[in-house]
Amino acid sequence: MTESGRRGRPRRAEVDESVLKAATELLLARGYAGLSTDEVAERAGIAKTTLYRRWPTKDHLAVAVVARLQAGDEITDTGDIRRDLPDYLEKIAAGLNRMRAAGRTHDDPSAGTVAELVAAAARHPDVGELERDLYARRNTLARALLERAVERGELRADLDVEALFDQLAGALYYRVLITGLPVDRAYAERLADTALRGAARSSDRDNA
Amino acid sequence: MTESGRRGRPRRAEVDESVLKAATELLLARGYAGLSTDEVAERAGIAKTTLYRRWPTKDHLAVAVVARLQAGDEITDTGDIRRDLPDYLEKIAAGLNRMRAAGRTHDDPSAGTVAELVAAAARHPDVGELERDLYARRNTLARALLERAVERGELRADLDVEALFDQLAGALYYRVLITGLPVDRAYAERLADTALRGAARSSDRDNA
Repeated sequence: MTESGRRGRPRRAEVDESVLKAATELLLARGYAGLSTDEVAERAGIAKTTLYRRWPTKDHLAVAVVARLQAGDEITDTGDIRRDLPDYLEKIAAGLNRMRAAGRTHDDPSAGTVAELVAAAARHPDVGELERDLYARRNTLARALLERAVERGELRADLDVEALFDQLAGALYYRVLITGLPVDRAYAERLADTALRGAARSSDRDNA
Repeated sequence: MTESGRRGRPRRAEVDESVLKAATELLLARGYAGLSTDEVAERAGIAKTTLYRRWPTKDHLAVAVVARLQAGDEITDTGDIRRDLPDYLEKIAAGLNRMRAAGRTHDDPSAGTVAELVAAAARHPDVGELERDLYARRNTLARALLERAVERGELRADLDVEALFDQLAGALYYRVLITGLPVDRAYAERLADTALRGAARSSDRDNA
């Protein structure tokens, strides 16, 4: 930002970015309980009222942080689903682990901030809608990856792409939110292997 | 209960059962927000202190309700995994739908009480441990069902039973907690079909 830009009224996108940057740092460092909208406003150098106009509650702000972090999780399509799928699942797992560990100084099997975000979606209908939109977008991208593999003939033509992706992403969330077990690269590979051996084209699978 | 039983000191198991019955009714009728430990004690006809000694918070009581409800979800093993698996997944889906709808008068895509229970596990380490134990027991039973199908040769010998069950249960939780989509019999069948076509023994699956 130039000196003149700093003196004039900052543009909306700049304000958003400085708020989200401060909120992301705070959420990752202190977890959900330690995220304070007042402190975010102070760190971003804006009035609290400006922040509340755009993000009425801490829950709204937390979802915006997740959206910002997820936007960085790009899907790589090398044309080899056996490689791209575990890579993408590992990225989802890393995002979950980052949120699970937010604000913690030691290992803990509970879901931490991941659970708080799920609860926030249940508390506020509009936060729920934002979160579901966010996941719908991610699912659309992930399904496109699988659909291209179907078109290339790597996966069977009658594959239920929606159910398959629910199973893959779902297993990661299930371990983090429900059973408290770890998710990592090795587990992402087990999932992809289990799913691909089911999803890959095979002439006798219909006898299953 | 006999008259003399009512006059004497009720046995611990009887107190537990009347508390859990009252808590289950209240949770299902009013949802997590409407569950009040004071009201449960009153309905069960016991002193609040008696209730708090056994269930220190509403979160502890809510997990006990879930454990009681899940205990009724028996796994049927007819020896045909293509039949038993969708049946069992449908039971899990029904349990999730029951909790999702608790305390609601109209359809809502959010996870409701399912999300509150997940958040409760993240809030209290001991509640988290109780919930994880509960799910570990359920997973053990579900895996035994799959393992017997492996032994019968219905499923392939080198199946990753843990990853497979995580995927199946996980897809149901993912839709309820994350994407807000419905889970029902039809979806349970899609999951079982997608999974079985992967899990069923096949000579050429290793080429996938």
